[in-house]
Amino acid sequence: MKAACFKDGSISIQEIDTPAPRPGEALIRVLYSGICNTDIELYRGYYGFSGVPGHEFVGIVEEVNDNDRSLVGKRVCADINIGCGACRRCMSGDSRHCPEKRTLGINDQQGIFAEYVALPTGNLFPVPENVSDEEAVYAEPLAAALEIGQQIHITARDRIAVLGDGKLGLLCAFALSVYSPRVLLIGRHENKLKIASGNGIDTMVSGDQDLSRQFDMVVEATGSETGIRDALTMVRAEGTVVAKTTSHKPSEIDLAKIVVDEIQIIGSRCGSIPLSLTALSKKLIPVGALTEAMYPFLEFEKGFKHALRKGTLKILLDHTSASNT
Amino acid sequence: MKAACFKDGSISIQEIDTPAPRPGEALIRVLYSGICNTDIELYRGYYGFSGVPGHEFVGIVEEVNDNDRSLVGKRVCADINIGCGACRRCMSGDSRHCPEKRTLGINDQQGIFAEYVALPTGNLFPVPENVSDEEAVYAEPLAAALEIGQQIHITARDRIAVLGDGKLGLLCAFALSVYSPRVLLIGRHENKLKIASGNGIDTMVSGDQDLSRQFDMVVEATGSETGIRDALTMVRAEGTVVAKTTSHKPSEIDLAKIVVDEIQIIGSRCGSIPLSLTALSKKLIPVGALTEAMYPFLEFEKGFKHALRKGTLKILLDHTSASNT
Repeated sequence: MKAACFKDGSISIQEIDTPAPRPGEALIRVLYSGICNTDIELYRGYYGFSGVPGHEFVGIVEEVNDNDRSLVGKRVCADINIGCGACRRCMSGDSRHCPEKRTLGINDQQGIFAEYVALPTGNLFPVPENVSDEEAVYAEPLAAALEIGQQIHITARDRIAVLGDGKLGLLCAFALSVYSPRVLLIGRHENKLKIASGNGIDTMVSGDQDLSRQFDMVVEATGSETGIRDALTMVRAEGTVVAKTTSHKPSEIDLAKIVVDEIQIIGSRCGSIPLSLTALSKKLIPVGALTEAMYPFLEFEKGFKHALRKGTLKILLDHTSASNT
Repeated sequence: MKAACFKDGSISIQEIDTPAPRPGEALIRVLYSGICNTDIELYRGYYGFSGVPGHEFVGIVEEVNDNDRSLVGKRVCADINIGCGACRRCMSGDSRHCPEKRTLGINDQQGIFAEYVALPTGNLFPVPENVSDEEAVYAEPLAAALEIGQQIHITARDRIAVLGDGKLGLLCAFALSVYSPRVLLIGRHENKLKIASGNGIDTMVSGDQDLSRQFDMVVEATGSETGIRDALTMVRAEGTVVAKTTSHKPSEIDLAKIVVDEIQIIGSRCGSIPLSLTALSKKLIPVGALTEAMYPFLEFEKGFKHALRKGTLKILLDHTSASNT
């Protein structure tokens, strides 16, 4: 099969073996995929990654190496965390923090920028019929945005600011507006802010106003290691800062401010795929507004170069043409 | 009256006017006081402080400028945060985070290293009879330690580490051992660790073992801006780091670790004086073990120099002799 391989800052479509599903695994034909900022970080070599990246996708199950074959023929999205299955974390049903976990397209598990991928059936979730392939690609990043509402008790009275109008910031603003009407998205790009305002979310250009201590909750999704400082300025005493940026650079923070104002910082990563698919099925999140362009999978390199341009929104890849070759 | 005044790195006992209680305030004769690390920071000039510091004390109400004179003659401890009384915070009964608050001996309010202090009666809490003067001096710092259990749901199954065996670290270890038997105090001073182990708390010398991801909760009370990094290493995924250190230096943190492991950092400052007095009355916390020395108030400078020595535990001041002069 064809797969997009990263090595030492180069990308190439290569012919590699189609994975053989191990017991308990399914073979999935990838239909559509999306490029995430994490893929860009892998490409830039921050984690010494080489291999096939990619973790945002929808696919169709072609084969299952298990007695239970009920998933065969189903469209699915996947939880990207593959636990050991034996530790306390995994036994309690949440492999996201298994200390021995593999991570789809990131760590020790072939990613989905390929024609096929093999994954444990326990990681797969059928996509509701009324969710299109293009929408389903957003299940994983949307789950990460919805995760905030799983971690924190948010009410409709909470004044929430989201810092950063990139893909993640927009998804967080959309996701949080399900919980509170008082969401403000703050960014630097008029065109991206318009996507939010066009969907009923208040927006503001960064630096337009003094927002010190104005918010019950501030979501830091700027992608910059300095965003956390702005977030700490904007949150009220005893408020919550949600950290979403996985910067490879260290952040400098004023710990005394956190202590004196009894501020809470909470890191937030992956969320629940079934929850995300439910939100998509109920048409709660206008994910389509985030798609900037779609490329055929065989033009992966062209699509990835587009994604590398500063300020690009979501780039999708259509794998269905590749599978027909 | 006599008061200890800080100015430009010097300390002197000066004769100043005895404060006149304004409406709603009480005049309190200070009985005993304690020196806190914050007083040392004020002395070193970190906050441009000059005036009479001090906020840990027990006193006796001599006069009340109010119709309700029920506090007269009572031994009291005080909440150090004096709210504006009119904002949403104050109206909800918690002035600790009033944005206009004054702070006893720290900000815009004469401290208690003096013979007398005037404070709003709403800040005063009678000391139970079975709590000695020496114990009552600890009401304020102990409240800060107990605050952790007010902010976070702690169970007896939680593995808790306290980093730092100074006064605050010891008080936090004592306070948390009320909630969980699994408290480990980690420090660098055998003599201080012995105070904890002598009171049934497990202890360890820093660096003796790899403690990565071993704890559900880590309390950072080292007083150093680098302690937070150790705390983040030691906490499990989805665990909690409690920040207690108010360092004036910025801290460098690895935000990606916080995000990927979905760690929570929560700042923790002042707590409830009535809760603290109740704990003292029930003899839950052996605060007496923390007292290193007691000086007559008129020997304040000598006592303060003792407190300045690295590794000193609590220095108390006996004001009763001053009042008799």
